[in-house]
Amino acid sequence: MKIIGIVGSLRKDSLHRKVFNQYKELAKEHFELIDGEIAEFPMYDGEHDDHPAVVTLAEQIRSADGVIFFSPEYNYSIPGSLKNALDALSRQNPQPFAGKPAAIVGASPGNAGTARMQYHLRQVGVFLDLHIMNKPEVMISGAFSKLQDDVIVDEQTVEFLGLHAKSFAEFVRRF
Amino acid sequence: MKIIGIVGSLRKDSLHRKVFNQYKELAKEHFELIDGEIAEFPMYDGEHDDHPAVVTLAEQIRSADGVIFFSPEYNYSIPGSLKNALDALSRQNPQPFAGKPAAIVGASPGNAGTARMQYHLRQVGVFLDLHIMNKPEVMISGAFSKLQDDVIVDEQTVEFLGLHAKSFAEFVRRF
Amino acid sequence: MKIIGIVGSLRKDSLHRKVFNQYKELAKEHFELIDGEIAEFPMYDGEHDDHPAVVTLAEQIRSADGVIFFSPEYNYSIPGSLKNALDALSRQNPQPFAGKPAAIVGASPGNAGTARMQYHLRQVGVFLDLHIMNKPEVMISGAFSKLQDDVIVDEQTVEFLGLHAKSFAEFVRRF
Amino acid sequence: MKIIGIVGSLRKDSLHRKVFNQYKELAKEHFELIDGEIAEFPMYDGEHDDHPAVVTLAEQIRSADGVIFFSPEYNYSIPGSLKNALDALSRQNPQPFAGKPAAIVGASPGNAGTARMQYHLRQVGVFLDLHIMNKPEVMISGAFSKLQDDVIVDEQTVEFLGLHAKSFAEFVRRF
Repeated sequence: MKIIGIVGSLRKDSLHRKVFNQYKELAKEHFELIDGEIAEFPMYDGEHDDHPAVVTLAEQIRSADGVIFFSPEYNYSIPGSLKNALDALSRQNPQPFAGKPAAIVGASPGNAGTARMQYHLRQVGVFLDLHIMNKPEVMISGAFSKLQDDVIVDEQTVEFLGLHAKSFAEFVRRF
Repeated sequence: MKIIGIVGSLRKDSLHRKVFNQYKELAKEHFELIDGEIAEFPMYDGEHDDHPAVVTLAEQIRSADGVIFFSPEYNYSIPGSLKNALDALSRQNPQPFAGKPAAIVGASPGNAGTARMQYHLRQVGVFLDLHIMNKPEVMISGAFSKLQDDVIVDEQTVEFLGLHAKSFAEFVRRF
Repeated sequence: MKIIGIVGSLRKDSLHRKVFNQYKELAKEHFELIDGEIAEFPMYDGEHDDHPAVVTLAEQIRSADGVIFFSPEYNYSIPGSLKNALDALSRQNPQPFAGKPAAIVGASPGNAGTARMQYHLRQVGVFLDLHIMNKPEVMISGAFSKLQDDVIVDEQTVEFLGLHAKSFAEFVRRF
Repeated sequence: MKIIGIVGSLRKDSLHRKVFNQYKELAKEHFELIDGEIAEFPMYDGEHDDHPAVVTLAEQIRSADGVIFFSPEYNYSIPGSLKNALDALSRQNPQPFAGKPAAIVGASPGNAGTARMQYHLRQVGVFLDLHIMNKPEVMISGAFSKLQDDVIVDEQTVEFLGLHAKSFAEFVRRF
C-alpha cells in the first residue's frame, strides 16, 4: 500500500515535517508513506498548470492508494501554502484526489490541536471528492512539550499515531 | 476615508479584479479604495518577513480605515493565494489587521456566490481581530451572465454594490 | 435497501416534508425511504434517554442501510429541531449512526440552497461517524418557484433528485 | 450595564450553569448578568411565536446591552436546545439580537474547549446580526479537573474569566 503524505508547512524547522518523518516509520508495517512535495509549487494564477512539481505530485497521488495531510493551522484555517497546492492540483486532469481515501494529522502548541484547520480541510475535501476518515482524528495538543530531538517522545501519542496508521490502512482497504 | 481592497485571485482575467475596479468607482463618494497588491508575495515559509511586498501592504493596511476582500472561492474555501497573503501579513508587527473593520465581496458563476469561502474567511478574521461587517453580505450568483465588457451590467447588482459601499462607510465610521 | 429519511423541519407546511414525499417516489426503484419521525422528541436534557420516540428511531436507523437528511437551513445552520434529534439519538447505545452512509437534501427559497447548514451537518457527521456522500450535493435554490401543488415541477430538478437517489444507492452498496 | 446570559444546556447538573453562576459573580463590578431562561421554550414549528417564554426572553434581550452564551458543544456543534432557542427568538419582531454585542463562553472536559461549537455559533451570529467579540475567546479545556464543589478553582481560569468580563464591558461600551 502506497500513501502520499503532504506536509502543509514550508518552514525549515517545521513541526509537521518532523511528525511526518516519525509517522512514516510508525506506519511502515501498514503502508509506505511517500513524501508529496509541494515546496516548489508556483502560486496558482491559472497559467502554470503544466509546472513539473504540480504534474509530478498529481501523478503520484493518482497512482497512490490514499493521502494523508500533515498540516499546521495558520490563522484558524488551512495554511496558504497547502491550500495553494490543493488549488493547483485540483486543476489537473483527471483531478488526482477524486475518490481517494484520506486522513489528517495535526499538532499544535496550544490546546485545539489544529481542529479549526481540520474542518476547513474537510470542507475542501467534499469538493475534491476525498473520503476523509472520521475516526480517530489526530489533534495533538501541547505538541512542543511532547517533542525531544525532533521526535515525539510522549508514549501515549506515539502509540496513538501507530494506531492511526493501522486504522487508516484498514479504511483504505475498504475502498 | 481610505480603504484597502485585496483581490484574492491572481488570474490575469480575474472576475474579482473587474468587480474591484467597478466597486472602486461606485464607492468613490464614500471612500477611496486602494489596491492592496498581493501578486508579488512570496510563499510563506517563515523566512521572508521583510519582503518589500509584504512590508508595504502591511503598512498600507495599518494606515487605512478598513479592508475589503474581493475574492473567489476555490475548492469550497479561501484561495491559497489570498490565504498565503493573510498568513504573511499576520506575522508583521504590529499585526496590521488588528481591530480593523472589514467586508467581503464575492461573486461566482454558480448559485452560492462564494458563501463557503466567506465563512472560512470570517473564521480567519476572528484570529486576525478583524471586525467583519455582518450585513449586507455580497454573494453575487450567476456572475458571468451579469457581466458585459468587464463590467457588471445587471442594474440590481450595481445598485446593491453602491449600497454596500455606503453601508461599509457607515460601519467604519462607527469605530 | 432501506433508508431512513429524517425531515429536519417540524412546520406543518414544511417544504422539506414535500421534498421528502416526492423523493420517496423517485427513489422507489432504488430503495425504500422510511419516515424517521422526530416530531415527538423531547428537548434533550440528559434525562429522557428512554423516550419511546428516540428509542424507536434509534432502532430504525440501526437496522437501516443508510440515512438521508431533508433539512432547511435556519439562521445559517442546522435547525434546532434536527440538531436536538441528533443530540438525543447520539446518546443511544449503540450509537445508531456509527458507520452509516448518509446524504443531505436541502432546498431554499434563496440562492445558496442550504449550503451553510450542510457543512455544519457534515461536521456533526464526523463525530457521529456518518459517511456522508460527497457528490452530487443537493442544494435546490429558488425552491418555491419550482413548486406547484406541493410537488417540484422543474424538470431538471426532478431528474436530478432521481439521479441523486441512484447515486446514493450505489454509494450505500459500496459499504 | 445589563447583559443577558443564555445557558445552552438544559441538563440539571449542567457545567455551563455552574460557569454562568460563577461568571455572574466575577462580572459584578462590570455588569449585571441576567439569566436568559430557555428551558421552557417549545420546539420551534412555526406555530408558537407567542409563547410566553419566547416573548419574555426576546423582550429581555432587546432591553439589554449585550448577550453572553454559556454553552457546551454537542456532537461538534451547537446544542439543539440552544439552537432551537435561537431559531424561536429570531422569529420575534423586532428581531431581538439585531446589532447587539455578544460573547461566547465555553468549557469542555477535553482539549478543544468547545471550539467547534463556537465557530458555528459565530456563523449563526452573522445572520442574527450579533457583533461577537473576537478576543479573548473563552475555551476552557479540561474543565472538570478545574472544578471543585461546582466552582472553578483553577486560579488562572478564574482570573481569565474576570478579565473576559472586563473586556466585554469595554466592547459593549464601544457600541
